[in-house]
Amino acid sequence: MKVPQLDFAKLGGILPVVVQDAQSGEVLMQAFLNQEAWELTLREGFAHYYSRSKGRIWKKGERSGHIQRIVEVWIDCDDDSVLLKVHQEGGAACHTGYRSCYHRRLDGERLTVVGTPVFDPAKVYGGEAPER
Amino acid sequence: MKVPQLDFAKLGGILPVVVQDAQSGEVLMQAFLNQEAWELTLREGFAHYYSRSKGRIWKKGERSGHIQRIVEVWIDCDDDSVLLKVHQEGGAACHTGYRSCYHRRLDGERLTVVGTPVFDPAKVYGGEAPER
Repeated sequence: MKVPQLDFAKLGGILPVVVQDAQSGEVLMQAFLNQEAWELTLREGFAHYYSRSKGRIWKKGERSGHIQRIVEVWIDCDDDSVLLKVHQEGGAACHTGYRSCYHRRLDGERLTVVGTPVFDPAKVYGGEAPER
Repeated sequence: MKVPQLDFAKLGGILPVVVQDAQSGEVLMQAFLNQEAWELTLREGFAHYYSRSKGRIWKKGERSGHIQRIVEVWIDCDDDSVLLKVHQEGGAACHTGYRSCYHRRLDGERLTVVGTPVFDPAKVYGGEAPER
């Protein structure tokens, strides 16, 4: 499969990817792609990201089982950002157990946590820090 | 106004911001914030970004008039990514005139442009490259 060229140079080999629930339209998370993660995502049909903290490719859900099946792939006007519309296995994208990584809303000067966790991270990750 | 602390260090002073239409849920664009753009966005209630190409703060719509009024602000689990839900003045966020910067969908190995431009960039920007 021929993979569309993206502009990874602006951020030194990575670029931001926005991940949206294909059904609800909820923005689930934002991560980073490098060339290898981009190719794996397209070829396998499941989201792969580049983990800055681990310095390696990471298949989303590789430990939790909460994988993301690719439904649609959109590329932005400058070829330097990608939008993935996904089916989120397990219903939650965030390593904290919430549906979305964006589960804190700014109300005035305070952050309000909205919703409740879908899973218990201690049970899913067994106390070990997950990839992200 | 006290502004929540974000982790700008991971990307050397900037972090990705995802912009979503508050009404339709469409993801309009992804840009970058630095500390100053973050403060301006919260204090003024209109989206401000950091332009990597221009090396300066940019009020979205400063030339086109297509400003983004902040409806909701969400912060991610690691304090290193922000989701803005906005009202998009003029109906289009992209400098090409399309509603969304993500107006090209990957179908197999081809990119399909979806939708039609809301405005003519030549008329809005007069042939000069817009901020982005």
